[in-house]
Amino acid sequence: MESWKILEGGLDNVSGFSSYGINCGIKKEKNDLAAILSDTPATAAGVFTSNRFSAAPVLVTREHLLKERKLQLVVANSGVANACTGERGIEDARKMADFAASCFKVDSHLVAVASTGVIGEFLPLPKIEKGIEELSRILPVKKSSREAVKAIMTTDTFPKERALSFSWKGKTVHLGGIAKGSGMIKPNLATMLSFIVTDLGIDAGTLNQVLKEVVDESFNRVTVDGDTSTNDMVLILANGKSGIEAQEKDEVFPLFREALLWLAQELSRDLARDGEGATKFVEIIVQGAKNKEEARRGAFTVAESPLVKTALFGEDPNWGRIMAALGRSGIEIDPHKVNLEINGVTLVEGGMKAKGVGREQGQEAMKKKELRIIVDLGIGEGEFGVWTCDLSLDYVRINSHYS
Amino acid sequence: MESWKILEGGLDNVSGFSSYGINCGIKKEKNDLAAILSDTPATAAGVFTSNRFSAAPVLVTREHLLKERKLQLVVANSGVANACTGERGIEDARKMADFAASCFKVDSHLVAVASTGVIGEFLPLPKIEKGIEELSRILPVKKSSREAVKAIMTTDTFPKERALSFSWKGKTVHLGGIAKGSGMIKPNLATMLSFIVTDLGIDAGTLNQVLKEVVDESFNRVTVDGDTSTNDMVLILANGKSGIEAQEKDEVFPLFREALLWLAQELSRDLARDGEGATKFVEIIVQGAKNKEEARRGAFTVAESPLVKTALFGEDPNWGRIMAALGRSGIEIDPHKVNLEINGVTLVEGGMKAKGVGREQGQEAMKKKELRIIVDLGIGEGEFGVWTCDLSLDYVRINSHYS
Repeated sequence: MESWKILEGGLDNVSGFSSYGINCGIKKEKNDLAAILSDTPATAAGVFTSNRFSAAPVLVTREHLLKERKLQLVVANSGVANACTGERGIEDARKMADFAASCFKVDSHLVAVASTGVIGEFLPLPKIEKGIEELSRILPVKKSSREAVKAIMTTDTFPKERALSFSWKGKTVHLGGIAKGSGMIKPNLATMLSFIVTDLGIDAGTLNQVLKEVVDESFNRVTVDGDTSTNDMVLILANGKSGIEAQEKDEVFPLFREALLWLAQELSRDLARDGEGATKFVEIIVQGAKNKEEARRGAFTVAESPLVKTALFGEDPNWGRIMAALGRSGIEIDPHKVNLEINGVTLVEGGMKAKGVGREQGQEAMKKKELRIIVDLGIGEGEFGVWTCDLSLDYVRINSHYS
Repeated sequence: MESWKILEGGLDNVSGFSSYGINCGIKKEKNDLAAILSDTPATAAGVFTSNRFSAAPVLVTREHLLKERKLQLVVANSGVANACTGERGIEDARKMADFAASCFKVDSHLVAVASTGVIGEFLPLPKIEKGIEELSRILPVKKSSREAVKAIMTTDTFPKERALSFSWKGKTVHLGGIAKGSGMIKPNLATMLSFIVTDLGIDAGTLNQVLKEVVDESFNRVTVDGDTSTNDMVLILANGKSGIEAQEKDEVFPLFREALLWLAQELSRDLARDGEGATKFVEIIVQGAKNKEEARRGAFTVAESPLVKTALFGEDPNWGRIMAALGRSGIEIDPHKVNLEINGVTLVEGGMKAKGVGREQGQEAMKKKELRIIVDLGIGEGEFGVWTCDLSLDYVRINSHYS
């Protein structure tokens, strides 16, 4: 698409939005509190964790969103997740939103709150309130998407920001997004936060629908360790400042959908690349399955197998572990029909070691930083790909001493 | 039960059985080939892997067993799994059984074969045949259960043998078993081999039924990393040499069932204790679930969560990860009703951090080598316990350079 432009940075590209992040004292020095402000109330949609222990900010934000399907402000902290904190946790999340509403002079139900960090601790409200006050003096005059994304990072090793624009009838629509991830990422979301903004104008129902579809094709294809968190959410705010309005039937809508999908997929791949301790980005594609659902189950079982993931870390072309993981996934398999390739090198043919391929070629293929593993089951049309990373010594180091 | 006696060692205690293990050259020096011989054809039963890529020896042994439900000889090798080896793999497994049958002068269908090791490689038949010949000259004159179990070990750090006897009407019934496990262990079996022998007399149908029940209450409660292998099997041989016959309705039957359950559970706990890189043995019990199946699902999701397992390794009382794992397991949960304790220390009450319990007490409880984690969901009567271990740096070291 000729009119597409991939832009540097994240949220700052989008008209009518400003964001910033500061340290409010939850962490020692690093940023721990972010705010994203729209000049005007924006149409909004969200996708939330399916974990039964949904954290307090998830419950409060969903409630606010459902009122009018509009948001004007997102306030997010890292360091404390405000999860498993009972009634007091919900009151705290409400207080955080209400306080932000009064500082920024917007209605409470237009405020989304999000938290990430240790489970089971209460929010340090005085620190957060002081921080919100500070942010309300900064925005919208000064803005920095980079400072904002730094404030939602936990064990992430690099900030994740993406932006792009496309033109339509002489006007330009912008999309920008930030995300944090690392451990505990897996479909249906998990200690994964992403905030996306656009200056397109769109109705809430269409926005909600397209966000759900896009999340299924992006964030829900990522798994780091199979765990899902209590606090995940993806929010999108659309404020219409571009002067372009899109209904689902409009010609501009497919352009927007494609742009949003690109943005979400790039952020998702970054999440897998930055999985805790990851040394490799791995795409696992199961094709030729009975159907898409079976391909999905097979791909996730392989992607979440500790034995597969440690072999990937060790650059060990131990394809037997991939076969074993597929074999226990419960999907339909004819062992004699399975082919497997890693970065274009066929290791398995008809369920057996491919003829004429030595261990050296397998090892060579495994050395790349980015691996693409394709398993063809040879029995149907079902296909699904997931993005993951390897399981390294650093994953264990990071996670054995977190809280 | 007064007449119970726990015995030292394993298979050697049982009348009419002899076993031994040697190095036949698959591995450099360590034992890699074992044989277990019964003086006479024994009633037999087996439970096999549910993995779709069932290895060749699994297929051949199941076929042999189904012919007459009797076995007289078990031959097992380590180093090569003979899995994902197609038709040739099956021919090789048959050749291994046929060769053993001729050396030991028993019918082919009375021979079980088992293999464990790397997937995708063919059996080195000449070495194995030479080894079988050697074993046929040793047995039954010389016997050593310890040498046999050493020959089926892969990454196991200690041999697993158990034996016991009980008296009945002036006679003594013996049971002995060996097992190997380590990585890739999980319900429905996984690179897990166990061979159990008894001198009780019993009909094949009853033996088959009781073995299935006992495996469900023992080996199928163990998980190390959630992976299951292509090669698992549990075999039991009963040769009647004790002079005691048990039908299901006999008074002696419950004694035998209880003895077999004890044996299988002890071997299972040893498998979890010796999980690859394990520094802790962990029992996870979910109670108060809607039903047993939901308790089972919850317990396994917690036991297989990499985030939970690394926290256990780090002795980090990060109970939020246990809650997050339960929350994503898909079982019914009322967040306000969940209690959680570790080694008797209550950390969570009503879904929140228990009052008056500091981080220090949690850390103290986590320091033990054996952890018992009880989660009470408070909504029903369902209960299930699983045995697992932590996820350590050594697990990654071992598994990143295996094949």
